[in-house]
Amino acid sequence: MAAVEAALRSHPARPTHPDAMSRCMEACFNCAGTCTACADACLSERGVEGLLGAIRQNLDCAAICLATGSVVTRSKAGASRQVLESQLSVCIAACRACGDECRRHGEAHRHCRVCAQVCDDCAQVCTDMMATLRAVV
Amino acid sequence: MAAVEAALRSHPARPTHPDAMSRCMEACFNCAGTCTACADACLSERGVEGLLGAIRQNLDCAAICLATGSVVTRSKAGASRQVLESQLSVCIAACRACGDECRRHGEAHRHCRVCAQVCDDCAQVCTDMMATLRAVV
Amino acid sequence: MAAVEAALRSHPARPTHPDAMSRCMEACFNCAGTCTACADACLSERGVEGLLGAIRQNLDCAAICLATGSVVTRSKAGASRQVLESQLSVCIAACRACGDECRRHGEAHRHCRVCAQVCDDCAQVCTDMMATLRAVV
Amino acid sequence: MAAVEAALRSHPARPTHPDAMSRCMEACFNCAGTCTACADACLSERGVEGLLGAIRQNLDCAAICLATGSVVTRSKAGASRQVLESQLSVCIAACRACGDECRRHGEAHRHCRVCAQVCDDCAQVCTDMMATLRAVV
Repeated sequence: MAAVEAALRSHPARPTHPDAMSRCMEACFNCAGTCTACADACLSERGVEGLLGAIRQNLDCAAICLATGSVVTRSKAGASRQVLESQLSVCIAACRACGDECRRHGEAHRHCRVCAQVCDDCAQVCTDMMATLRAVV
Repeated sequence: MAAVEAALRSHPARPTHPDAMSRCMEACFNCAGTCTACADACLSERGVEGLLGAIRQNLDCAAICLATGSVVTRSKAGASRQVLESQLSVCIAACRACGDECRRHGEAHRHCRVCAQVCDDCAQVCTDMMATLRAVV
Repeated sequence: MAAVEAALRSHPARPTHPDAMSRCMEACFNCAGTCTACADACLSERGVEGLLGAIRQNLDCAAICLATGSVVTRSKAGASRQVLESQLSVCIAACRACGDECRRHGEAHRHCRVCAQVCDDCAQVCTDMMATLRAVV
Repeated sequence: MAAVEAALRSHPARPTHPDAMSRCMEACFNCAGTCTACADACLSERGVEGLLGAIRQNLDCAAICLATGSVVTRSKAGASRQVLESQLSVCIAACRACGDECRRHGEAHRHCRVCAQVCDDCAQVCTDMMATLRAVV
């Protein structure tokens, strides 16, 4: 999302970390998209009964990632720091839970394998964003 | 949202607290709607420069409430308890932050006064939902 | 959502139909919540394989209703009329498609029966909102 | 979003156009993110009173793009074709309206210039997706 970073770089509040912010938003939206695709693929699998947990985690993770991506994008201009950090935390937890569940089905289903990796990556990027926030004070 | 409660009451997983769940979802969606309306009303106020913080808090609170309402509705069938509780927590924090900010403008603008009350109510309902979850173990 | 209506009534742009707007937003958010609950209940049904179409329609309808509710709330202050009318149209189509699909499972599952009714109601309220918009010119 | 495409390629329903679908979802989510960033940057501009239309269009466009991205991702497994095409149409209209409005502020504000371009691109990708759908019958 080079465009998001470009937009943030011209934000009058001059965010100190537009690259970290745009990377975090991109990771969140990418994760939301992949979870949505994985949930739909799971619904079409022959053994859908064994994938119900994965579908629910996918839907939760997608909803939480979309909210997080949106909140992160507004984060430079004074939204509550506590709310931002809490939303990043819950996003990390949701990505980990979804990644763990999808990994259990990763051998059988490539979409679950892909999704587990994307969830792990998103959790890492959100963790990095949190570290960046704290470094800036 | 009597319909949401009715739908949850016929959920095969037999949630132990469909009334608390539907109340929580209703409060979250109602808060999202009111924050969206308040943000738009703030944008139209003559002194919009003094309301930028309220607008941002409104948008964050709306995004977080929508995610929370969606996660809560799936909560009876085994989504991660930790994720659910964390999402409720961040929703409470977002509602309090938004409510506090809107209250600062409550004398001047009725929509901010209304919104502050709705945010407070949503924070309380989410707190109750958390207590219900813990009582059930 | 008396609060949404109250917030809209104090909107500086003085919407000519705050009651229709708040009713439409309420119907959209209520429908999104009910569809989310119905999708999750369907996932827990023994015969989930027969309900996959309903689950997908529920998820689509919920996503579309949330967007519509949000757009409608900003509608009095000059967002594009064409976009607003088109979003209402697609919401009506999504509610009808989801309602029809859920009705097919209404005898077997109360949550589908409830959801079909809520979808029908939302389609009607969106149709009324469109008529109100056109009457105002 | 190579991951989204990979997930769709392993979807059991074997979508005939996973590349077009993932490109469309990526464009929609990228547009939602850029519009969210542009709205927040506009809020911080000195002349915010002149940007209120752009902020509202940005928020509408973001909401509509998120819904569209989500619906498109579920599109291969039998969601209503009419709903899908209608949602793509309204997304194209919202992107064009937002792009036009942002372009009016493009000389003064780089984030508006960037956003206008992203909106135009998203409208084009959604138009292509529609053509692909129709070619497949």
